[in-house]
Amino acid sequence: MSARSATHLLISCPDRPGIVAAVSRFLFERAANIVEADQYATETEGGTFYMRMAFQLDQASADDFERAFGAEVAEPFEMEWRLSYPDDPRRIAVLVSREDHCLLDLLWRARRGDFEGEIVQVISNHPEHEPDVTTFDVPFAYVPVEGDQRAAERKMLDLLAGNVELVVLARYMRILSGEFLGAVGVPFINIHHSFLPAFPGAEPYARAAERGVKIIGATAHYVTEELDEGPIIEQDVARVSHRHAAGELAAIGRDIERIVLARAVRWHLQDRVIVHENRTVVF
Amino acid sequence: MSARSATHLLISCPDRPGIVAAVSRFLFERAANIVEADQYATETEGGTFYMRMAFQLDQASADDFERAFGAEVAEPFEMEWRLSYPDDPRRIAVLVSREDHCLLDLLWRARRGDFEGEIVQVISNHPEHEPDVTTFDVPFAYVPVEGDQRAAERKMLDLLAGNVELVVLARYMRILSGEFLGAVGVPFINIHHSFLPAFPGAEPYARAAERGVKIIGATAHYVTEELDEGPIIEQDVARVSHRHAAGELAAIGRDIERIVLARAVRWHLQDRVIVHENRTVVF
Amino acid sequence: MSARSATHLLISCPDRPGIVAAVSRFLFERAANIVEADQYATETEGGTFYMRMAFQLDQASADDFERAFGAEVAEPFEMEWRLSYPDDPRRIAVLVSREDHCLLDLLWRARRGDFEGEIVQVISNHPEHEPDVTTFDVPFAYVPVEGDQRAAERKMLDLLAGNVELVVLARYMRILSGEFLGAVGVPFINIHHSFLPAFPGAEPYARAAERGVKIIGATAHYVTEELDEGPIIEQDVARVSHRHAAGELAAIGRDIERIVLARAVRWHLQDRVIVHENRTVVF
Amino acid sequence: MSARSATHLLISCPDRPGIVAAVSRFLFERAANIVEADQYATETEGGTFYMRMAFQLDQASADDFERAFGAEVAEPFEMEWRLSYPDDPRRIAVLVSREDHCLLDLLWRARRGDFEGEIVQVISNHPEHEPDVTTFDVPFAYVPVEGDQRAAERKMLDLLAGNVELVVLARYMRILSGEFLGAVGVPFINIHHSFLPAFPGAEPYARAAERGVKIIGATAHYVTEELDEGPIIEQDVARVSHRHAAGELAAIGRDIERIVLARAVRWHLQDRVIVHENRTVVF
Repeated sequence: MSARSATHLLISCPDRPGIVAAVSRFLFERAANIVEADQYATETEGGTFYMRMAFQLDQASADDFERAFGAEVAEPFEMEWRLSYPDDPRRIAVLVSREDHCLLDLLWRARRGDFEGEIVQVISNHPEHEPDVTTFDVPFAYVPVEGDQRAAERKMLDLLAGNVELVVLARYMRILSGEFLGAVGVPFINIHHSFLPAFPGAEPYARAAERGVKIIGATAHYVTEELDEGPIIEQDVARVSHRHAAGELAAIGRDIERIVLARAVRWHLQDRVIVHENRTVVF
Repeated sequence: MSARSATHLLISCPDRPGIVAAVSRFLFERAANIVEADQYATETEGGTFYMRMAFQLDQASADDFERAFGAEVAEPFEMEWRLSYPDDPRRIAVLVSREDHCLLDLLWRARRGDFEGEIVQVISNHPEHEPDVTTFDVPFAYVPVEGDQRAAERKMLDLLAGNVELVVLARYMRILSGEFLGAVGVPFINIHHSFLPAFPGAEPYARAAERGVKIIGATAHYVTEELDEGPIIEQDVARVSHRHAAGELAAIGRDIERIVLARAVRWHLQDRVIVHENRTVVF
Repeated sequence: MSARSATHLLISCPDRPGIVAAVSRFLFERAANIVEADQYATETEGGTFYMRMAFQLDQASADDFERAFGAEVAEPFEMEWRLSYPDDPRRIAVLVSREDHCLLDLLWRARRGDFEGEIVQVISNHPEHEPDVTTFDVPFAYVPVEGDQRAAERKMLDLLAGNVELVVLARYMRILSGEFLGAVGVPFINIHHSFLPAFPGAEPYARAAERGVKIIGATAHYVTEELDEGPIIEQDVARVSHRHAAGELAAIGRDIERIVLARAVRWHLQDRVIVHENRTVVF
Repeated sequence: MSARSATHLLISCPDRPGIVAAVSRFLFERAANIVEADQYATETEGGTFYMRMAFQLDQASADDFERAFGAEVAEPFEMEWRLSYPDDPRRIAVLVSREDHCLLDLLWRARRGDFEGEIVQVISNHPEHEPDVTTFDVPFAYVPVEGDQRAAERKMLDLLAGNVELVVLARYMRILSGEFLGAVGVPFINIHHSFLPAFPGAEPYARAAERGVKIIGATAHYVTEELDEGPIIEQDVARVSHRHAAGELAAIGRDIERIVLARAVRWHLQDRVIVHENRTVVF
């Protein structure tokens, strides 16, 4: 388990002069020690402005921070904003089907303190991961999907609702309904085993072998109701050749998948990712 | 201009025992000095077998080589095969529209001797490349396309038919008819400015920016009648971020396009590429 | 020739609270439209603070900008700072020996408008590049080095001093004296054909082949008196194998060298590079 | 545990005509079904010739294979050669100090069947890995090094000699004596956490941060008495920037280290690696 070491402030608002000056003066007056700052505007003029500030705050300054920032800065600039505090590790659930490489990689990294969060629940429609998961002292739930996805979703909802702030689909191969996503009410991050928008849907490695591509990839994205169409957080690739059959592409792809998914999860937990019109700004 | 330094033998045939033994004994008996050898079978048993041999042959052995190989080796094994001799540089035409980066890169590399071939004709539907092309002592033809692609194709056919053994589409942005491709009767290599099968067709960089991908790419492929569906020879990619608008993706992409296209052309001229069921084996 | 489209402000100073607030308020009060902003501190507390701001300024605001910023912001925070104005393209000289790939790539990119600057002089200790260079309407000077590097340096100094704001060593293979570098008095960027600190000095590709490395690279760095020891601006790499002899490594390396050098030159001209204790901050 | 699925034949000998013909005829006559074949000669003429053949053999043919090949092929061509049989998984020991990422990655991959071999012993000079290792049903030995490396080496020799065919140093941070390496008498593969020959020895990430490199890497190599000077099997790299302090370089490097080491181990176990004059041929 690892805690956030700084307060994170994420802002998006219509771009206009004076935003940076207002935010930085506010932070200066409250003696905030800025450790990271990033900003981005979609257009030179008239676009949307995004900003991420990471800073350290002493307790006295923190008390009234949220109310004062809202009134003095956020409101005049019509900001959407989000503040997250240190020592507040996010609670994460992992959903997984048969393939264990992403699951085990996430468990390791969480144990090692790579994430500003902790994995508090693993759910699988396959029972065989239980020993591995319990070795990491993480609760494991076997929720089979037989015919009716809805029954499984009801069981998972009981385990997740109000319990976690992020769900990671670590090669969970069942399609989740929009109702379920909405009911859980937290972000879902999925790893898709292709370089989207190439090869969405089923069997991407087989189709990559069939098409004869020379590079394969993996894509981590937020889950929306449209399958494999959500905002992309991170992608990476590896070279392949005619010598690699679909099975070998899958083996090469496993190493990309777990790295891409881990990056996306880490950045999300560091509040580095802002979604804008089905794309992401990653600071 | 650069000549092939070795004789190249390319073979494809039904896989069965004894192929390598027969080919290598034949070469040994003719005192061929093998400098490169590659082979690949699509299946462990019962698939298709591919082989490339590069070797040096003295003149006495060369005379009867082709007839003897056909009778003694190729026929018994039902081989499709192709032999290309050293000191026989391929004649290449380059077709280009407005963007000059691939054109100039190919002209340089050809002058430097990077290709086992020489560029003997450049054709463009834009006149402005003429000074650059003539600096390299290469004939330039301006063939505008106004309304009727067929008139342009007839003019290009006059320039190409019987004159060249390879046509390179170096960002030529007009669709060529199947009749034209057939009439020219030599391989066409195209560079498409996306990581196929992602973003086929027009404006791939704009669509990549729109989709929010984190990696862009380029694809060199043989041209077939199906647009952007031909066998892929080579691909490469570069990282991008939300900070890159479509124009910046295009600038980053230019460096990938010229390198990917140059590799594909070089490998084709070295007889390293075999097409098999709309995929390529690249030795 | 391409002009800078925005005013660039580069700052380094001891890190302490209030810097961002002071700079951004100053810019806001002068109605500067910030288009890019980056900052970095070497330590969470007590380190050095770096900042780059790119902004658009109307003429009225520009007039007094420099004096006012110095007095109101730079002095109180003990800043080292630099301001560069739009419509002020930098003048660049390129020095080159026999290999032409970096030279020609730079000439192209400059013509295409990729750089915020223009190449106004090429100098070589080999005469054969003259036709290529003059095709691009750039003055070419042949300055042979025979025995005495000092005589050559005197001639080059005449051509460079007061004439250029950046010198690019585009595979210039002669060592330049500290006196010469000092007398020219502008930054020099060199491309070294290895992945520094591996293989400094002569014949890096031969030594890479000898050592059996599986990846080769190129490094663009500012030139200091210590050969190949200056601050690194950019590096990139490519995979190689036992099949590549030194000559083939050099061919593969050429594509990396020209891309790495072009990036370093572009970033330098965009005022993105700050040197700090023999390292660079690249915004 | 995973078994080799084919017989592997590795050959090196002085290059001269007829080698391929002789080997392939021999295999054909024994009805060997060749599934992979690779060859390489260091020079066009007069160099060293390397070959790897992977093939399937029925039992009848296997019986006399070794003696016959020695007499009929290997001896006339003065070959050094090595034959390894299927269903003969190699026994592997892993040595590790504090960092667990390579260790756990190897244990996973071995369990998943990625290696043609099985891990039969883990030894560490830190006791804390025991629970993880025993979860994978692999024996764990804690062999502390206090002052005297020789005492530790004696204990490790008892565990290794005659028991394993490969030792993997998975971030084992103690220097092993030449006597020990010789006494164990099997190949040792080490992962070094830099892009050799850059940053050999201690603290490579700290030195990479100090030098300001823009790319870091990892190197898997066979261990020789000269520290970090052995033949390189595989390398890979990742981009970094001024924003990454030494600790973050180490975190990024961990993902490279485990992938590079796993590739080297897999290729070694597939008999793809031949050492030649302190370099490797990797087929």
